Amino acid sequence: MHPKRHLVQLHILKVTGESVARTKDQVAVEEPLEIRLSGENDGQRFDQNVSVTMRTPGDDFELAAGFLFTEGILRTRDELHEITYCVGANKGAQQYNVVRVRLKPGVSFDPQRLQRNFYATSSCGICGKASLESIRTLGCIELPPDMPRVKKNLIPLLPAVLLKQQSLFEKTGGIHAAALFDAHGNLLSVREDVGRHNAVDKLMGEQFLADAVPLHARLMLVSGRTSFEVLQKALAAGIPFVAGVGAPSSLAVDLAREFNLTLCGFVRDGRFNVYSGEARLV
Amino acid sequence: MHPKRHLVQLHILKVTGESVARTKDQVAVEEPLEIRLSGENDGQRFDQNVSVTMRTPGDDFELAAGFLFTEGILRTRDELHEITYCVGANKGAQQYNVVRVRLKPGVSFDPQRLQRNFYATSSCGICGKASLESIRTLGCIELPPDMPRVKKNLIPLLPAVLLKQQSLFEKTGGIHAAALFDAHGNLLSVREDVGRHNAVDKLMGEQFLADAVPLHARLMLVSGRTSFEVLQKALAAGIPFVAGVGAPSSLAVDLAREFNLTLCGFVRDGRFNVYSGEARLV
Repeated sequence: MHPKRHLVQLHILKVTGESVARTKDQVAVEEPLEIRLSGENDGQRFDQNVSVTMRTPGDDFELAAGFLFTEGILRTRDELHEITYCVGANKGAQQYNVVRVRLKPGVSFDPQRLQRNFYATSSCGICGKASLESIRTLGCIELPPDMPRVKKNLIPLLPAVLLKQQSLFEKTGGIHAAALFDAHGNLLSVREDVGRHNAVDKLMGEQFLADAVPLHARLMLVSGRTSFEVLQKALAAGIPFVAGVGAPSSLAVDLAREFNLTLCGFVRDGRFNVYSGEARLV
Repeated sequence: MHPKRHLVQLHILKVTGESVARTKDQVAVEEPLEIRLSGENDGQRFDQNVSVTMRTPGDDFELAAGFLFTEGILRTRDELHEITYCVGANKGAQQYNVVRVRLKPGVSFDPQRLQRNFYATSSCGICGKASLESIRTLGCIELPPDMPRVKKNLIPLLPAVLLKQQSLFEKTGGIHAAALFDAHGNLLSVREDVGRHNAVDKLMGEQFLADAVPLHARLMLVSGRTSFEVLQKALAAGIPFVAGVGAPSSLAVDLAREFNLTLCGFVRDGRFNVYSGEARLV
């Protein structure tokens, strides 16, 4: 079984007014992925489950790397020994649903920190203020306003560029996407997933594995709403500019303003709103 | 501070072609909620964190009850002693972000089961098959095809009914909703949240607290896509009919077919698709 089965074809009923037709339809695959982290800590070997997420198969190594990077567990490409599928444990179609990320010998890792990070970021801490604080302690710093500057008439053009590349969306109508652009609006990469945050993790993981982080000269566009989690991941990767086709949440705006990240929302029909960091728009 | 602040007003920049206007905008509030479970087990008192979720404040007790009910931890209204805010621990705006659910003395609760359930359902198990199995062991059973039957020309009318009641969506354009209808298409209840599964938990929690479960004669409509998690929660509450304005995922379809739940998708513009359980449509 190939681990990249994004789509399944199904027999369905299509109802249009009074007409009912039997037809075939494609839906996006949703399957769980377990991410395991292994390595050696003070001479002690460890190999533990750090996350289970519902994802669309494909780019699984990028998803694992992006997750660990944006959670502050992997810091540089250098710390990574290898990423492999744990095949064999399960037979059949599901055997590509466990990924093991192996740290290089000697790379320190504090399991306590993992617990704290998960609680404080993805799982998110008890109050907004605490969340913002914990992001600061993850090493995220305020972004200077002078990099990069983006022409404001470029922004409304980006969703159409993304949509053209969204092969799964076209076929299923039901999948999230995250795309990376340079400051001139050139598309660099697109990732898709049933999970909003997974699409972002895949994109960040690709850049991390290519040793291209921090992404100070990049703009990220997401196909849906911008939540706290999306902004937190952008910030962890040093992205100064995030745009969403949908609405932002209150905590996403707080986070953007606190760290001087440019946040645009409702980028559609030739219009958009700027919630933070307008100095980066020219 | 009132715990029901759904919206915040922000000063933003609105860009339309060449025109830039300073204006005010409303965004949906996103804040973390910690759910704690407390009670007595074999004479031992316990009080532990069982979940932290990013939610839109409001209906927090329903959210907590719905989460514990759809995870199979709370089984009947009777097992519940009370739900309260843990105020005082944090001062200020964030003090309504911790909710404690207290079980009645003598209500048994196995912490191991909690761990297993979380792994197996929300956090979802290692393979689709295992997930389906674990739902069966949660006590979910196949739904008989004869209840309720719904007229197929009713389905396309439901999203407009929901939209009319979506007060937050109207104001922010960025929030999920879940609505409960009877088999004649009468709207019974609507809940909204930045998180798709939170909107469903709030709706299920309301019904649970009103001692109205199982919901065998009800139809649930969700404003977005239908994922595994949405279907799992519907099934836990005994709902035989789920419709989504967006696309279903592959695992949602698997789950619906396995348990004979009727699943409709892309309910919009007078049309919809039927992915499972067509016998319930007349």
